[in-house]
Amino acid sequence: MDIVIRKVTVDDMQDVYNLVHELAVFEKEPEALIISVNEYIEAYTESLIDGFVATQNDNVVGIAIFYMTFSTWKGKCLYLEDFYVQPGFRKFGIGQKLFDAYIMEAKNLGANMTKWQVLDWNNIGLEFYKKNNATIEKDWWNGKIFLT
Amino acid sequence: MDIVIRKVTVDDMQDVYNLVHELAVFEKEPEALIISVNEYIEAYTESLIDGFVATQNDNVVGIAIFYMTFSTWKGKCLYLEDFYVQPGFRKFGIGQKLFDAYIMEAKNLGANMTKWQVLDWNNIGLEFYKKNNATIEKDWWNGKIFLT
Repeated sequence: MDIVIRKVTVDDMQDVYNLVHELAVFEKEPEALIISVNEYIEAYTESLIDGFVATQNDNVVGIAIFYMTFSTWKGKCLYLEDFYVQPGFRKFGIGQKLFDAYIMEAKNLGANMTKWQVLDWNNIGLEFYKKNNATIEKDWWNGKIFLT
Repeated sequence: MDIVIRKVTVDDMQDVYNLVHELAVFEKEPEALIISVNEYIEAYTESLIDGFVATQNDNVVGIAIFYMTFSTWKGKCLYLEDFYVQPGFRKFGIGQKLFDAYIMEAKNLGANMTKWQVLDWNNIGLEFYKKNNATIEKDWWNGKIFLT
């Protein structure tokens, strides 16, 4: 399978949006995606997000979307906001290639750590992260206040 | 008690660092704080962190440290990295004033949401967030890979 891993561009934002929606369906919260692709374009233009896409025949089949944050304990931290490969394109190592590119990017940007979140029932995801020797923390809860 | 809430400056970084250490002790992970105040100064200078401090007689007694992130579901999200008031200065509403300033800042910056994390055994914190009508999510785990 002829897969290309490359940096995301503004022209990919509609494809990224579509895959984030697929991921939200998988995570059983499709209604949680309330913004439009315009916000993605704006965020990308303002350097609030960056990432890699996996393409086959110029079709985006996988994404790794991230941004730099700062851990007051560990220092610079590249946060993985979304990581997804379409079901029909799994088992070919595309997810691993995207994840490797993400880790490499974190190192190149001088990050001391990478962080993301995974649902407690997402065994496929958890298995993947364990295979990558990730630390999984189960004792932190998310607090959120929505302003809109 | 004569408390002032104001934006953090680079000159506050040593005080912020000291309070983050106190918070790490409270969270039973003092050894997890591996960086020095120099990284804080660098992060502040690079606009990777911002925040508010609460002072009494020019002494920093509380902090709210945050940075802008992007939720691909909700849009701009002001993430609260550290939130702490020294034990001897609690019960005077300082935490609420810091939190209010943080929420107001998020609105002023056009964020659609605010997010933070709280340890599952931190009942004081959880009570505070519930009082502020926060949503608490218990089904997301953190994944991390450390690069240093």
